[in-house]
Amino acid sequence: MELIQFFDYAGTFVFAISGTLMAAEKRLDIFGALIIGFATAIGGGTLRDMMLGDLPVTWIRSLDYFFIVVGGVAVTVLFRRLVLKLRSTLFLFDTIGIGAFTVIGIAKAQVVGIQPPIAVMLGMITAVAGGVIRDTLCNEVPLIFRKEIYATACIGGGAFYFLLQMFDVSQTVTVWLSMLCVVAVRILAVRFGISLPIVHDKPTDEDN
Amino acid sequence: MELIQFFDYAGTFVFAISGTLMAAEKRLDIFGALIIGFATAIGGGTLRDMMLGDLPVTWIRSLDYFFIVVGGVAVTVLFRRLVLKLRSTLFLFDTIGIGAFTVIGIAKAQVVGIQPPIAVMLGMITAVAGGVIRDTLCNEVPLIFRKEIYATACIGGGAFYFLLQMFDVSQTVTVWLSMLCVVAVRILAVRFGISLPIVHDKPTDEDN
Amino acid sequence: MELIQFFDYAGTFVFAISGTLMAAEKRLDIFGALIIGFATAIGGGTLRDMMLGDLPVTWIRSLDYFFIVVGGVAVTVLFRRLVLKLRSTLFLFDTIGIGAFTVIGIAKAQVVGIQPPIAVMLGMITAVAGGVIRDTLCNEVPLIFRKEIYATACIGGGAFYFLLQMFDVSQTVTVWLSMLCVVAVRILAVRFGISLPIVHDKPTDEDN
Repeated sequence: MELIQFFDYAGTFVFAISGTLMAAEKRLDIFGALIIGFATAIGGGTLRDMMLGDLPVTWIRSLDYFFIVVGGVAVTVLFRRLVLKLRSTLFLFDTIGIGAFTVIGIAKAQVVGIQPPIAVMLGMITAVAGGVIRDTLCNEVPLIFRKEIYATACIGGGAFYFLLQMFDVSQTVTVWLSMLCVVAVRILAVRFGISLPIVHDKPTDEDN
Repeated sequence: MELIQFFDYAGTFVFAISGTLMAAEKRLDIFGALIIGFATAIGGGTLRDMMLGDLPVTWIRSLDYFFIVVGGVAVTVLFRRLVLKLRSTLFLFDTIGIGAFTVIGIAKAQVVGIQPPIAVMLGMITAVAGGVIRDTLCNEVPLIFRKEIYATACIGGGAFYFLLQMFDVSQTVTVWLSMLCVVAVRILAVRFGISLPIVHDKPTDEDN
Repeated sequence: MELIQFFDYAGTFVFAISGTLMAAEKRLDIFGALIIGFATAIGGGTLRDMMLGDLPVTWIRSLDYFFIVVGGVAVTVLFRRLVLKLRSTLFLFDTIGIGAFTVIGIAKAQVVGIQPPIAVMLGMITAVAGGVIRDTLCNEVPLIFRKEIYATACIGGGAFYFLLQMFDVSQTVTVWLSMLCVVAVRILAVRFGISLPIVHDKPTDEDN
């Protein structure tokens, strides 16, 4: 389970970068960037832990997340141009990150006996809440509500997780395959421009 | 106490609908509607449970709320025109819902020995926080801060709850009468166009 | 430790005023002002307690904070003109308030064995989260991300706290000196117009 820990850390690092980039776009100061970076990186896991009652929440129990986030923010502030050039690499790590976050959230929920559909929700919340908090703090309607198959990938991977468990697949294989499922769904969705339909049923001229 | 459970579920269902309608207005995708629907329906109770320490929070302990919310969102997405026509029915259930939410919140707070005025606050938070989260996620100044006697109805009903208890009225009667009080205050306020004064003390031409 | 309790209460009172003033600016009704006042005054401590697992959260365990907040909101609604004239007094109490909040947050985190850098973060969150919630509810990009050395003062004071502890300074002296440090950094920053650099590395004409 060492490798998933690494992906968890990598996801945290990339989320801190994404928060900092948004802060820079909004012309916030360095402290604002640090806070947005933190909130983006640890927001999802914090909300999950507060709802599950796994307290104190994960990020405050060790220094690991602290230094990873500070590192991500610092790298972005110092080498912003370079970071912007690495967008496709960042996209990959962001995707692997949400995969790891989803699976970790599900596993945590399962330990305390939460039922599968709710566990999938908690996995998805772990993965997406940070981005929602980032966008809300920056006064934007959260991106994930509008554009990308993102949380849907988490839900897909989460459903796959429990499907595998139903067939008595070992925990290790389940974890890796369902993480891969999240990554695959998202990459395919972005590559082929798939998005969910808008909730809307009036076919009038205003519609585009 | 069976019936109040039913009203709790009905309120949850109607709150999920109200979140989905707001998501549709903002042209969010189906997933966005699901999240806003969830946040609206279970946000208040979740915040209350996290503050009280009743963890894991209520909605993740059973599948009931999950299916009620998914049902509310699905119905709204599939039959949006019909739902929009039922506005006055929805208003009634929404009002009964906040009544139930208020009373349930107060009862929960009382069990752990929270003092009456704080218990009333927690009841009110249970009832209104979901709508506040919905509006914040959709980038609006929360509706309840601007227009309606809504939370005031919750506070009124909550005060009535403790007044009845002071006179040794039985728990069942207390619960039902104070729920009725919330409903009555809100319906009367809406019917007669009563609203709270704005905080403002400069009587200049700019005013209303 | 009596006096720090007083400063905690004074900070809560002033934060309630600042929330109400913002609510008035946004032309919210009296109830909206009460909620924004509450959220501003107790938001930071509530978030800290929910993350640490110190539940029920502080403000719901006694009536003290309730009446302080209601008092702060009432004073502002009734004597708004007067309150607006006392801006510099308010600034002083606000500054002392964040100093007290920071130190209290750090002390609480230390009791449960949280490591110094994280404890400083929690102290800072205690001090600033209320203002962030206020601005988010009122649909503004949080002020502290844009303008003032505010949270930076908290972090400075927090670092000083652990520096003093390293040199075996007594708890009482540590608490007071680090609170003073927060106050001094903020007052100096405001007086001399010091602010943090914006995250931005494109030296184009648009830059100022």
